[in-house]
Amino acid sequence: MRADARKNREHLLAVAGDVITEQGVDASMRDIARRADVGLATLLRHFPTREALLEALLRTNFDQLAATAADLETSPSPDDALVRWLRDFVASARDYRGVIASMVTAIADEESALHESCVAMRAAGTRLLARAQAEGGARKDIDGTDLFALAGSLAWLGDQPSLAPRADHLFDVVVSAVLPLAGHATAGRKDRP
Amino acid sequence: MRADARKNREHLLAVAGDVITEQGVDASMRDIARRADVGLATLLRHFPTREALLEALLRTNFDQLAATAADLETSPSPDDALVRWLRDFVASARDYRGVIASMVTAIADEESALHESCVAMRAAGTRLLARAQAEGGARKDIDGTDLFALAGSLAWLGDQPSLAPRADHLFDVVVSAVLPLAGHATAGRKDRP
Repeated sequence: MRADARKNREHLLAVAGDVITEQGVDASMRDIARRADVGLATLLRHFPTREALLEALLRTNFDQLAATAADLETSPSPDDALVRWLRDFVASARDYRGVIASMVTAIADEESALHESCVAMRAAGTRLLARAQAEGGARKDIDGTDLFALAGSLAWLGDQPSLAPRADHLFDVVVSAVLPLAGHATAGRKDRP
Repeated sequence: MRADARKNREHLLAVAGDVITEQGVDASMRDIARRADVGLATLLRHFPTREALLEALLRTNFDQLAATAADLETSPSPDDALVRWLRDFVASARDYRGVIASMVTAIADEESALHESCVAMRAAGTRLLARAQAEGGARKDIDGTDLFALAGSLAWLGDQPSLAPRADHLFDVVVSAVLPLAGHATAGRKDRP
Protein backbone atom coordinates (compact mmCIF):
# COMPACT_ATOMS: atom_id res chain seq x y z
CA MET A 1 0.00 0.00 0.00
CA ARG A 2 1.32 3.46 -0.88
CA ALA A 3 2.07 5.80 1.99
CA ASP A 4 -0.80 8.20 1.24
CA ALA A 5 -3.26 5.35 0.79
CA ARG A 6 -2.21 3.93 4.14
CA LYS A 7 -2.55 7.35 5.72
CA ASN A 8 -6.07 7.71 4.30
CA ARG A 9 -6.99 4.30 5.57
CA GLU A 10 -5.71 5.09 9.04
CA HIS A 11 -7.62 8.35 9.06
CA LEU A 12 -10.83 6.56 8.09
CA LEU A 13 -10.26 3.95 10.79
CA ALA A 14 -9.68 6.60 13.45
CA VAL A 15 -12.85 8.47 12.49
CA ALA A 16 -14.84 5.24 12.32
CA GLY A 17 -13.60 4.39 15.81
CA ASP A 18 -14.90 7.72 17.10
CA VAL A 19 -18.28 7.36 15.42
CA ILE A 20 -18.69 3.79 16.65
CA THR A 21 -17.71 4.84 20.17
CA GLU A 22 -20.55 7.35 20.05
CA GLN A 23 -23.19 5.40 18.15
CA GLY A 24 -22.30 1.75 18.64
CA VAL A 25 -21.52 -0.86 16.02
CA ASP A 26 -24.70 -0.05 14.10
CA ALA A 27 -23.32 3.34 13.04
CA SER A 28 -23.98 3.91 9.34
CA MET A 29 -21.24 3.99 6.71
CA ARG A 30 -22.76 7.24 5.45
CA ASP A 31 -22.26 8.89 8.86
CA ILE A 32 -18.70 7.68 9.02
CA ALA A 33 -17.90 8.97 5.51
CA ARG A 34 -19.48 12.34 6.30
CA ARG A 35 -17.48 12.72 9.50
CA ALA A 36 -14.27 11.76 7.69
CA ASP A 37 -15.08 14.37 5.05
CA VAL A 38 -14.92 11.87 2.19
CA GLY A 39 -17.53 10.55 -0.18
CA LEU A 40 -19.24 7.27 0.63
CA ALA A 41 -17.58 5.76 -2.46
CA THR A 42 -14.15 6.54 -1.04
CA LEU A 43 -14.98 4.89 2.26
CA LEU A 44 -16.37 1.85 0.46
CA ARG A 45 -13.22 1.56 -1.64
CA HIS A 46 -11.25 1.04 1.57
CA PHE A 47 -13.92 -0.93 3.41
CA PRO A 48 -16.53 -2.48 1.12
CA THR A 49 -18.91 -3.29 4.00
CA ARG A 50 -19.50 -2.21 7.56
CA GLU A 51 -18.37 -5.69 8.59
CA ALA A 52 -15.04 -5.16 6.83
CA LEU A 53 -14.61 -1.84 8.61
CA LEU A 54 -15.53 -3.27 11.99
CA GLU A 55 -13.18 -6.16 11.40
CA ALA A 56 -10.29 -3.81 10.67
CA LEU A 57 -11.09 -1.77 13.77
CA LEU A 58 -11.28 -4.82 15.97
CA ARG A 59 -8.11 -6.29 14.55
CA THR A 60 -6.28 -3.03 15.31
CA ASN A 61 -7.76 -3.11 18.79
CA PHE A 62 -6.79 -6.74 19.46
CA ASP A 63 -3.29 -6.14 18.13
CA GLN A 64 -2.93 -3.15 20.46
CA LEU A 65 -4.06 -5.22 23.43
CA ALA A 66 -1.56 -7.92 22.52
CA ALA A 67 1.19 -5.31 22.22
CA THR A 68 0.23 -3.78 25.58
CA ALA A 69 0.41 -7.20 27.19
CA ALA A 70 3.83 -7.80 25.65
CA ASP A 71 5.08 -4.49 27.08
CA LEU A 72 3.64 -5.29 30.50
CA GLU A 73 5.35 -8.68 30.62
CA THR A 74 8.54 -7.01 31.78
CA SER A 75 6.97 -4.56 34.25
CA PRO A 76 8.13 -5.00 37.86
CA SER A 77 4.81 -6.06 39.41
CA PRO A 78 3.12 -9.05 37.73
CA ASP A 79 -0.10 -8.32 39.62
CA ASP A 80 -0.32 -4.70 38.57
CA ALA A 81 0.57 -5.68 35.01
CA LEU A 82 -2.37 -8.08 34.92
CA VAL A 83 -4.80 -5.54 36.36
CA ARG A 84 -3.66 -2.83 33.98
CA TRP A 85 -4.12 -5.11 31.02
CA LEU A 86 -7.57 -6.19 32.18
CA ARG A 87 -8.51 -2.55 32.60
CA ASP A 88 -7.38 -1.81 29.04
CA PHE A 89 -9.28 -4.80 27.74
CA VAL A 90 -12.52 -3.77 29.41
CA ALA A 91 -12.11 -0.10 28.47
CA SER A 92 -11.45 -0.83 24.81
CA ALA A 93 -14.43 -3.14 24.61
CA ARG A 94 -16.50 -0.40 26.19
CA ASP A 95 -15.30 2.09 23.59
CA TYR A 96 -16.81 0.01 20.84
CA ARG A 97 -20.27 -0.57 22.16
CA GLY A 98 -21.74 -3.86 21.05
CA VAL A 99 -18.37 -5.33 20.24
CA ILE A 100 -18.27 -7.97 22.95
CA ALA A 101 -20.45 -10.38 21.02
CA SER A 102 -18.08 -10.15 18.04
CA MET A 103 -15.10 -10.87 20.28
CA VAL A 104 -16.71 -13.86 21.88
CA THR A 105 -17.72 -15.22 18.49
CA ALA A 106 -14.31 -14.57 16.91
CA ILE A 107 -12.43 -16.45 19.57
CA ALA A 108 -14.54 -19.56 19.08
CA ASP A 109 -14.90 -19.47 15.30
CA GLU A 110 -11.79 -20.50 13.41
CA GLU A 111 -13.38 -19.30 10.19
CA SER A 112 -13.73 -15.78 11.53
CA ALA A 113 -11.37 -13.26 9.96
CA LEU A 114 -10.68 -12.01 13.48
CA HIS A 115 -9.94 -15.38 15.00
CA GLU A 116 -6.16 -15.11 14.76
CA SER A 117 -5.91 -11.61 16.27
CA CYS A 118 -8.32 -12.49 19.02
CA VAL A 119 -6.49 -15.70 19.91
CA ALA A 120 -3.14 -13.87 19.92
CA MET A 121 -4.62 -11.22 22.23
CA ARG A 122 -5.95 -13.84 24.61
CA ALA A 123 -2.60 -15.65 24.56
CA ALA A 124 -0.81 -12.41 25.49
CA GLY A 125 -3.21 -11.95 28.42
CA THR A 126 -2.67 -15.56 29.41
CA ARG A 127 1.07 -14.94 29.73
CA LEU A 128 0.38 -12.03 32.08
CA LEU A 129 -1.90 -14.27 34.12
CA ALA A 130 0.69 -17.05 34.26
CA ARG A 131 3.31 -14.63 35.52
CA ALA A 132 0.97 -13.25 38.19
CA GLN A 133 0.19 -16.84 39.20
CA ALA A 134 3.85 -17.82 39.41
CA GLU A 135 5.29 -14.68 40.98
CA GLY A 136 2.32 -12.64 42.20
CA GLY A 137 -1.00 -13.04 43.92
CA ALA A 138 -3.24 -14.44 41.18
CA ARG A 139 -5.37 -17.47 41.97
CA LYS A 140 -4.13 -20.62 40.31
CA ASP A 141 -7.44 -22.25 39.42
CA ILE A 142 -8.19 -20.06 36.40
CA ASP A 143 -6.68 -20.03 32.93
CA GLY A 144 -6.53 -17.61 30.04
CA THR A 145 -9.98 -18.56 28.80
CA ASP A 146 -11.45 -17.89 32.24
CA LEU A 147 -9.69 -14.54 32.28
CA PHE A 148 -11.05 -13.70 28.84
CA ALA A 149 -14.55 -14.72 29.97
CA LEU A 150 -14.38 -12.61 33.14
CA ALA A 151 -13.05 -9.62 31.22
CA GLY A 152 -15.79 -10.13 28.64
CA SER A 153 -18.48 -10.21 31.30
CA LEU A 154 -17.12 -6.99 32.83
CA ALA A 155 -17.09 -5.38 29.42
CA TRP A 156 -20.69 -6.51 28.89
CA LEU A 157 -21.59 -4.92 32.19
CA GLY A 158 -20.06 -1.61 31.14
CA ASP A 159 -22.05 -1.86 27.92
CA GLN A 160 -25.44 -1.91 29.70
CA PRO A 161 -26.59 1.67 30.23
CA SER A 162 -28.33 0.86 33.52
CA LEU A 163 -25.36 -1.06 34.96
CA ALA A 164 -22.49 0.98 33.54
CA PRO A 165 -22.24 3.29 36.59
CA ARG A 166 -21.32 0.20 38.64
CA ALA A 167 -18.77 -1.12 36.17
CA ASP A 168 -15.63 0.37 37.73
CA HIS A 169 -16.55 -0.76 41.22
CA LEU A 170 -17.42 -4.24 40.03
CA PHE A 171 -14.17 -4.39 38.09
CA ASP A 172 -12.41 -4.01 41.45
CA VAL A 173 -14.66 -6.65 43.02
CA VAL A 174 -13.87 -9.18 40.29
CA VAL A 175 -10.17 -8.30 40.35
CA SER A 176 -10.15 -9.05 44.07
CA ALA A 177 -11.25 -12.58 43.19
CA VAL A 178 -8.66 -12.97 40.43
CA LEU A 179 -5.87 -11.66 42.68
CA PRO A 180 -6.94 -12.75 46.18
CA LEU A 181 -3.40 -12.56 47.51
CA ALA A 182 -2.40 -9.26 45.94
CA GLY A 183 -4.24 -6.81 48.15
CA HIS A 184 -7.07 -5.22 46.28
CA ALA A 185 -6.11 -1.57 46.88
CA THR A 186 -2.61 -2.05 45.51
CA ALA A 187 -3.63 -4.10 42.54
CA GLY A 188 -6.31 -1.62 41.55
CA ARG A 189 -4.14 1.48 41.66
CA LYS A 190 -3.68 3.02 38.26
CA ASP A 191 -0.53 4.97 38.97
CA ARG A 192 1.74 2.02 39.55
CA PRO A 193 4.17 0.92 36.87
CA MET B 1 -60.23 -16.36 35.06
CA ARG B 2 -62.06 -19.69 35.08
CA ALA B 3 -60.15 -22.66 36.40
CA ASP B 4 -59.84 -24.40 33.02
CA ALA B 5 -58.77 -21.18 31.32
CA ARG B 6 -56.08 -20.69 33.95
CA LYS B 7 -54.98 -24.27 33.52
CA ASN B 8 -54.72 -23.80 29.76
CA ARG B 9 -52.74 -20.63 30.24
CA GLU B 10 -50.35 -22.33 32.63
CA HIS B 11 -49.91 -25.22 30.21
CA LEU B 12 -49.10 -22.80 27.38
CA LEU B 13 -46.62 -20.96 29.58
CA ALA B 14 -44.88 -24.18 30.60
CA VAL B 15 -44.58 -25.33 26.98
CA ALA B 16 -43.42 -21.88 25.89
CA GLY B 17 -40.77 -21.99 28.61
CA ASP B 18 -39.49 -25.31 27.25
CA VAL B 19 -39.41 -24.12 23.65
CA ILE B 20 -37.67 -20.87 24.59
CA THR B 21 -35.13 -22.80 26.67
CA GLU B 22 -34.31 -24.79 23.55
CA GLN B 23 -34.54 -22.11 20.87
CA GLY B 24 -34.03 -18.81 22.68
CA VAL B 25 -36.36 -15.84 22.87
CA ASP B 26 -36.74 -15.76 19.10
CA ALA B 27 -38.72 -19.00 19.10
CA SER B 28 -41.78 -18.66 16.87
CA MET B 29 -45.35 -18.56 18.19
CA ARG B 30 -46.21 -21.20 15.60
CA ASP B 31 -43.64 -23.60 17.08
CA ILE B 32 -44.92 -22.98 20.57
CA ALA B 33 -48.55 -23.58 19.55
CA ARG B 34 -47.60 -26.77 17.70
CA ARG B 35 -45.69 -28.12 20.71
CA ALA B 36 -48.60 -27.27 23.01
CA ASP B 37 -50.93 -29.10 20.63
CA VAL B 38 -53.20 -26.12 20.13
CA GLY B 39 -53.96 -23.94 17.14
CA LEU B 40 -52.05 -20.71 16.70
CA ALA B 41 -55.33 -18.81 17.24
CA THR B 42 -55.70 -20.36 20.68
CA LEU B 43 -52.20 -19.37 21.68
CA LEU B 44 -52.77 -15.84 20.39
CA ARG B 45 -56.00 -15.56 22.37
CA HIS B 46 -53.97 -16.01 25.55
CA PHE B 47 -50.88 -14.12 24.39
CA PRO B 48 -51.53 -11.76 21.48
CA THR B 49 -47.81 -11.26 20.75
CA ARG B 50 -44.53 -12.99 21.46
CA GLU B 51 -43.66 -10.03 23.65
CA ALA B 52 -46.78 -10.62 25.77
CA LEU B 53 -45.85 -14.27 26.15
CA LEU B 54 -42.26 -13.49 27.04
CA GLU B 55 -43.42 -10.90 29.52
CA ALA B 56 -45.69 -13.42 31.23
CA LEU B 57 -42.88 -15.95 31.35
CA LEU B 58 -40.43 -13.46 32.79
CA ARG B 59 -42.91 -12.18 35.33
CA THR B 60 -43.49 -15.75 36.52
CA ASN B 61 -39.75 -16.23 36.68
CA PHE B 62 -39.10 -13.02 38.63
CA ASP B 63 -41.94 -13.79 41.03
CA GLN B 64 -40.47 -17.24 41.64
CA LEU B 65 -37.05 -15.76 42.34
CA ALA B 66 -38.61 -13.29 44.77
CA ALA B 67 -40.47 -16.14 46.49
CA THR B 68 -37.29 -18.23 46.68
CA ALA B 69 -35.48 -15.31 48.29
CA ALA B 70 -38.28 -14.88 50.81
CA ASP B 71 -38.04 -18.57 51.74
CA LEU B 72 -34.27 -18.36 52.07
CA GLU B 73 -34.48 -15.37 54.40
CA THR B 74 -35.11 -17.70 57.32
CA SER B 75 -32.57 -20.36 56.40
CA PRO B 76 -29.85 -20.93 59.01
CA SER B 77 -26.85 -19.78 56.96
CA PRO B 78 -27.13 -16.29 55.46
CA ASP B 79 -24.13 -16.96 53.23
CA ASP B 80 -25.47 -20.18 51.80
CA ALA B 81 -28.86 -18.55 51.32
CA LEU B 82 -27.28 -15.80 49.23
CA VAL B 83 -25.26 -18.24 47.12
CA ARG B 84 -28.27 -20.47 46.51
CA TRP B 85 -30.35 -17.55 45.40
CA LEU B 86 -27.63 -16.29 43.08
CA ARG B 87 -27.35 -19.75 41.60
CA ASP B 88 -31.10 -19.83 40.97
CA PHE B 89 -30.97 -16.38 39.42
CA VAL B 90 -28.18 -17.29 37.01
CA ALA B 91 -29.70 -20.67 36.16
CA SER B 92 -33.12 -19.24 35.39
CA ALA B 93 -31.63 -16.54 33.21
CA ARG B 94 -29.69 -19.24 31.43
CA ASP B 95 -32.86 -21.24 30.85
CA TYR B 96 -34.31 -18.41 28.84
CA ARG B 97 -31.52 -17.64 26.45
CA GLY B 98 -31.39 -14.01 25.44
CA VAL B 99 -33.42 -12.91 28.43
CA ILE B 100 -30.70 -10.98 30.23
CA ALA B 101 -31.08 -7.92 28.03
CA SER B 102 -34.82 -7.82 28.85
CA MET B 103 -34.08 -8.04 32.56
CA VAL B 104 -31.53 -5.29 32.48
CA THR B 105 -33.88 -3.09 30.50
CA ALA B 106 -36.88 -3.84 32.70
CA ILE B 107 -35.13 -2.89 35.89
CA ALA B 108 -34.18 0.52 34.52
CA ASP B 109 -37.37 1.31 32.62
CA GLU B 110 -40.28 2.29 34.82
CA GLU B 111 -42.56 2.08 31.80
CA SER B 112 -41.73 -1.56 31.25
CA ALA B 113 -44.51 -3.97 32.10
CA LEU B 114 -41.91 -6.06 33.90
CA HIS B 115 -40.43 -3.26 35.95
CA GLU B 116 -42.39 -3.98 39.11
CA SER B 117 -41.64 -7.74 39.17
CA CYS B 118 -38.01 -7.15 38.40
CA VAL B 119 -37.60 -4.52 41.09
CA ALA B 120 -39.35 -6.76 43.64
CA MET B 121 -37.03 -9.62 42.71
CA ARG B 122 -33.97 -7.44 43.11
CA ALA B 123 -35.26 -6.16 46.45
CA ALA B 124 -35.69 -9.73 47.67
CA GLY B 125 -32.09 -10.49 46.68
CA THR B 126 -30.95 -7.31 48.37
CA ARG B 127 -32.45 -8.51 51.66
CA LEU B 128 -30.46 -11.75 51.36
CA LEU B 129 -27.32 -9.73 50.71
CA ALA B 130 -27.98 -7.43 53.67
CA ARG B 131 -28.39 -10.43 55.97
CA ALA B 132 -25.17 -12.03 54.70
CA GLN B 133 -23.42 -8.69 55.23
CA ALA B 134 -24.74 -8.32 58.77
CA GLU B 135 -24.47 -11.91 59.97
CA GLY B 136 -22.34 -13.73 57.43
CA GLY B 137 -19.27 -13.28 55.28
CA ALA B 138 -20.48 -10.98 52.49
CA ARG B 139 -18.38 -7.94 51.62
CA LYS B 140 -19.98 -4.70 52.74
CA ASP B 141 -19.04 -2.47 49.81
CA ILE B 142 -21.66 -3.79 47.41
CA ASP B 143 -25.41 -3.25 47.30
CA GLY B 144 -28.39 -4.95 45.69
CA THR B 145 -27.78 -3.26 42.35
CA ASP B 146 -24.18 -4.47 42.32
CA LEU B 147 -25.40 -7.96 43.14
CA PHE B 148 -27.94 -7.79 40.32
CA ALA B 149 -25.23 -6.57 37.94
CA LEU B 150 -22.81 -9.34 38.92
CA ALA B 151 -25.51 -11.98 38.61
CA GLY B 152 -26.49 -10.52 35.25
CA SER B 153 -22.92 -10.67 34.00
CA LEU B 154 -22.64 -14.30 35.10
CA ALA B 155 -25.89 -15.08 33.35
CA TRP B 156 -24.58 -13.36 30.22
CA LEU B 157 -21.49 -15.52 30.43
CA GLY B 158 -23.58 -18.69 30.60
CA ASP B 159 -25.48 -17.44 27.57
CA GLN B 160 -22.37 -17.32 25.32
CA PRO B 161 -21.89 -20.73 23.72
CA SER B 162 -18.10 -20.45 23.72
CA LEU B 163 -17.90 -19.34 27.38
CA ALA B 164 -20.74 -21.40 28.87
CA PRO B 165 -18.47 -24.35 29.82
CA ARG B 166 -16.65 -21.95 32.18
CA ALA B 167 -19.79 -20.48 33.70
CA ASP B 168 -20.03 -22.72 36.77
CA HIS B 169 -16.39 -22.30 37.65
CA LEU B 170 -16.55 -18.54 37.18
CA PHE B 171 -19.70 -18.42 39.29
CA ASP B 172 -17.58 -19.79 42.14
CA VAL B 173 -14.81 -17.29 41.41
CA VAL B 174 -17.20 -14.33 41.54
CA VAL B 175 -18.96 -15.73 44.63
CA SER B 176 -15.59 -15.86 46.36
CA ALA B 177 -15.36 -12.09 45.83
CA VAL B 178 -18.90 -11.46 47.07
CA LEU B 179 -18.35 -13.63 50.16
CA PRO B 180 -14.66 -13.23 50.91
CA LEU B 181 -15.08 -14.23 54.52
CA ALA B 182 -17.40 -17.17 54.01
CA GLY B 183 -14.99 -19.81 52.78
CA HIS B 184 -15.66 -20.57 49.18
CA ALA B 185 -16.11 -24.36 49.53
CA THR B 186 -18.82 -24.04 52.15
CA ALA B 187 -20.67 -21.26 50.45
CA GLY B 188 -20.69 -23.09 47.15
CA ARG B 189 -22.04 -26.37 48.40
CA LYS B 190 -25.46 -27.15 47.04
CA ASP B 191 -26.59 -29.61 49.66
CA ARG B 192 -26.67 -27.18 52.56
CA PRO B 193 -29.94 -25.82 53.86
